Amino acid sequence: MQHRNLEACFSPALYKYHENKKAIVVVIDVLRATSSICAAFANGVVSIIPVAEEKEALEYKRSGYMVAAERDGYVLDFADFGNSPFNFSREKVDGKSIVYSTTNGTKVMNMASSSYLVTIGSYLNISALSRLLVEQKKDVILLCAGWKNKVNIEDTLCAGAFAEKLLSSNLFTTNCDSVKIACDLWSLARKDMLGYIDKSAQRSRLRDKKLDDCLELCHTLDITDKIPVLWDGKLVDISTVNLLTIY
Amino acid sequence: MQHRNLEACFSPALYKYHENKKAIVVVIDVLRATSSICAAFANGVVSIIPVAEEKEALEYKRSGYMVAAERDGYVLDFADFGNSPFNFSREKVDGKSIVYSTTNGTKVMNMASSSYLVTIGSYLNISALSRLLVEQKKDVILLCAGWKNKVNIEDTLCAGAFAEKLLSSNLFTTNCDSVKIACDLWSLARKDMLGYIDKSAQRSRLRDKKLDDCLELCHTLDITDKIPVLWDGKLVDISTVNLLTIY
Repeated sequence: MQHRNLEACFSPALYKYHENKKAIVVVIDVLRATSSICAAFANGVVSIIPVAEEKEALEYKRSGYMVAAERDGYVLDFADFGNSPFNFSREKVDGKSIVYSTTNGTKVMNMASSSYLVTIGSYLNISALSRLLVEQKKDVILLCAGWKNKVNIEDTLCAGAFAEKLLSSNLFTTNCDSVKIACDLWSLARKDMLGYIDKSAQRSRLRDKKLDDCLELCHTLDITDKIPVLWDGKLVDISTVNLLTIY
Repeated sequence: MQHRNLEACFSPALYKYHENKKAIVVVIDVLRATSSICAAFANGVVSIIPVAEEKEALEYKRSGYMVAAERDGYVLDFADFGNSPFNFSREKVDGKSIVYSTTNGTKVMNMASSSYLVTIGSYLNISALSRLLVEQKKDVILLCAGWKNKVNIEDTLCAGAFAEKLLSSNLFTTNCDSVKIACDLWSLARKDMLGYIDKSAQRSRLRDKKLDDCLELCHTLDITDKIPVLWDGKLVDISTVNLLTIY
């Protein structure tokens, strides 16, 4: 039985030191990009096109797409709604392909796109995605989106939750100190995730902008079995792609 | 009373996102550079010239300096001794100016040299240095040397120990998630530091090379009141410099 390597990367700026083209990368941006993307798939979205630039999002809007776009917590005037997971309701997204504008999230997904596979992770799909990672015979990198390249608490914690699930399979080994730090934080926080998250800087930012109603949803386990993956520049559910075509 | 900002930076590759020219930077490289430097000052060294390149260390040796230099755990053939803190004994270093060759350590110190002041931190001088940081009316950045730009456990933990001391003065505030993560690790590890450090990758590397005899010394609190600072490219004790001359 071949052991697979597990690493955690606490900031996009550190990704080049962890990069491994044979690995499956799990992008984690708990507040709020990857939680919102998982919520959209749970509610039947067909695909999500992640875009970095506001201009690009506007072009999609003009060509008929529904667009989710915020900057600094304010919905852009041409957008249909903002980036809260509550916006991606079944009424709005079921059966549709939509555009999600997120500067940092898009950058992080593209950064990892030369790896074996880029997946979208959050508490909302943690068990389903962890099962996939255990089934695939690949190394795994847990890639935290962080905040402007700084380490943040909420993504580090979620990386710890994923790491604990993967390591408990006994199919992964790790020599990565970041994995161990993340697991220790998770052991401290797991009994009261929201209480723990209360000290995070992003939690304060969302509170200041009255955008913190999503906090509980973003920390709810296993709302969906959907596993969004980056495929030809779009996010789609893994059940719709043929992994054998990668190589 | 003006509050000062406290940040922790877990990797040299993240320093540019924390940089603050008005801050005092504490460079932390527990295994082993900053512990060894503190041990040398405890044993009476007058100054330490940190050099990055082997070639530069060799030139100093030829001009008569005592040189500590290792690569991958092996003492370089021209060097007087390696980088273990045990090598910087009073018999060897008292009253002398010596050269310390450390690629990563030198890089990290130089990186921070445009800040208000670069100090060398370790468990060996943690109380003395923390007192200085409380007395100075400056922001503080705890800069972990890490391992090849990756986050490591031992430096993160020591940053947590410093942060706890500084925050308990009530003179610092922080909105930096890394500080909070480091403090939480410290709360988990403080009762059994060596037991906790056992899982770090660097601890395994040192064990494999039979260089782990220094582990206990590198995790011993308050062996010295010396505070090495970077001054004109050399490390000297803070008592020998006039801080008022900075600006």
